[in-house]
Amino acid sequence: MQNAPDGTLAAEEITPGELRLAARNHALPLEALRYPITPAGLHYLLIHYDIPPVDAAVFRLEVSGAVERPLSLTLDDLRAREAVSMPVTFECAGNGRALLSPRPLSQPWLTEAVGTAEWAGTPLAPLLDEAGVRPSAVEALFTGLDRGIEGGAPQSYERALALADTEGALLAYEMNGAPLPPQHGFPLRLVVPGWYGMTNVKWLTRITLLEQPFDGYQNAVAYRMYGAGGEPGDPVTRMQPRSLMVPPGVPDFMSRERHLEPGPGPLTGRAWSGYGRIERVEVSTDAGASFAAAELDEPLGEAAWRGWRFEWEATPGSHVLSSRATDAAGQTQPLDAPWNLKGYANNAVERVPVVVGPA
Amino acid sequence: MQNAPDGTLAAEEITPGELRLAARNHALPLEALRYPITPAGLHYLLIHYDIPPVDAAVFRLEVSGAVERPLSLTLDDLRAREAVSMPVTFECAGNGRALLSPRPLSQPWLTEAVGTAEWAGTPLAPLLDEAGVRPSAVEALFTGLDRGIEGGAPQSYERALALADTEGALLAYEMNGAPLPPQHGFPLRLVVPGWYGMTNVKWLTRITLLEQPFDGYQNAVAYRMYGAGGEPGDPVTRMQPRSLMVPPGVPDFMSRERHLEPGPGPLTGRAWSGYGRIERVEVSTDAGASFAAAELDEPLGEAAWRGWRFEWEATPGSHVLSSRATDAAGQTQPLDAPWNLKGYANNAVERVPVVVGPA
Repeated sequence: MQNAPDGTLAAEEITPGELRLAARNHALPLEALRYPITPAGLHYLLIHYDIPPVDAAVFRLEVSGAVERPLSLTLDDLRAREAVSMPVTFECAGNGRALLSPRPLSQPWLTEAVGTAEWAGTPLAPLLDEAGVRPSAVEALFTGLDRGIEGGAPQSYERALALADTEGALLAYEMNGAPLPPQHGFPLRLVVPGWYGMTNVKWLTRITLLEQPFDGYQNAVAYRMYGAGGEPGDPVTRMQPRSLMVPPGVPDFMSRERHLEPGPGPLTGRAWSGYGRIERVEVSTDAGASFAAAELDEPLGEAAWRGWRFEWEATPGSHVLSSRATDAAGQTQPLDAPWNLKGYANNAVERVPVVVGPA
Repeated sequence: MQNAPDGTLAAEEITPGELRLAARNHALPLEALRYPITPAGLHYLLIHYDIPPVDAAVFRLEVSGAVERPLSLTLDDLRAREAVSMPVTFECAGNGRALLSPRPLSQPWLTEAVGTAEWAGTPLAPLLDEAGVRPSAVEALFTGLDRGIEGGAPQSYERALALADTEGALLAYEMNGAPLPPQHGFPLRLVVPGWYGMTNVKWLTRITLLEQPFDGYQNAVAYRMYGAGGEPGDPVTRMQPRSLMVPPGVPDFMSRERHLEPGPGPLTGRAWSGYGRIERVEVSTDAGASFAAAELDEPLGEAAWRGWRFEWEATPGSHVLSSRATDAAGQTQPLDAPWNLKGYANNAVERVPVVVGPA
């Protein structure tokens, strides 16, 4: 019950169900870490059900439940409100799942279910103020237009947040300066900086203020840290710190093993955390036996990944390269992350095998 | 050595190498068949090596080899030439591979490695005329900027075409009205209507006119129809006819099995062939035992998929739905496609299991 020792997959093979999910959803190709803002088609994507068809002309966002003045807003209404834009890093809560052993069965992510986009929209807080949230309200439930079956029950994708956790949230209608692409929630999605991706409800059509904590599937069943015996633990919330590198050299097609020539050159990458700014990134070129500090780029934004750079003299032979992040909360990535039943929040340090040989 | 009988995967599980490829590359989520022109981030993607970094300001397309007047063209030079735009359907030659048994080891595609974009650029033929192709030239070799290792050898991705097969080819710099995204070949790619996707070399930087047939990896080794004993057969060329439907109803998250309510409703989808216009699409709602004609949409273009529609009364119970295409060359999709070692051109009829139940 730990990460595979060399960063490769455990011996068990992938099941057909996992393959069906992997064919639809996709990770960030790691070389795309070179872009500070991820182009839309390269950003990771996890879609629970189907991308719903949406007619923007008849679309409404309804705000109801424990409010004084229920709202029904068109996209134009939302666009006419205060607008803000910010780079935000999203990571799937299941990132790293396929490296756990035994491997939890769901979307079989390796390490790269991440991306950073420039999200533009209107802040949630003034809109809730306008609706007049009643003092009795404790949570806001965000419901998408996508429907499917999960845990045996038909449902819309929906997740609730405690009101305090909605601070800083955005109702986004643009990604990287263009209307949201269908797969990222057109025409409207929630963006909650710092939280794992499941929080950022796509195709957002309803916000319901609740007077009791939500006990629906995605909060009460799905996104929780279960033990091996199935005992439910804490909910999955903010992103644990993680760093990834742009794999150096060139890949072998089938194995994706990296090959490069000897000599000096930079290793580069990006690191992020949902618990505050990245304060330190360290790099290991000896399979995690020792680490040395990388140079950090200026922050891209308070809720976005931070670039780093490390000079390395590649010597002939096989090496395992790693980077690890430490955030402002003092948390450092572990070499092995604790196992949990559904494979969430595995932020174990990456292991990138490379072969350095003569040109 | 045939397709799995119910359209599901064969019993053998997916290997770690296949998963690494599946995490990077991605198929068209089948509900995105609803869009006549596929949004960029939903179009299938197969990248042999890495997406290369390209500086458009210093980019050049070189035309050399057996020509009278070698050319070196900037992106502005290319944009100043005659421009054409057309919708073209691309499909990966390995589409359907993961449904073969035994399963050839490579990118484990199910049925949905397809997409249709509006490609704009300049026609290849006048450019070759300007360079003055020598009568001794027999093939044009198209070389991309992406490098990797395949079959044990470091190489650039490159593929050659007989000169007659370059007719109608486009050097594309726009996809869906915007500059090519990095993953689709920015700043320039080849588009050869009707051929499988490997033909459409991305990050195109060199065209070399050859006086002998090219014996490089992608033509001589990779994209060929091998027998079970490894004996090399014909090269992979044009897309075989294929039809896919928008899966009706809603999915179960993990199995992707479809669930819908009883009653009348349309089944819709799209069909294409590299051998001419789609002339007929038929639908089966009884696991391929019988087929009935669907209604065809007007063609979107000569090189693009064609929409279809079929009215179905969904009755309670389990059903397997299929559609199959017939093209202008008189070719109809088979229920089972012949097996080949590398899993190319498997255009066996789709099988979509659905469960119809009360609401």
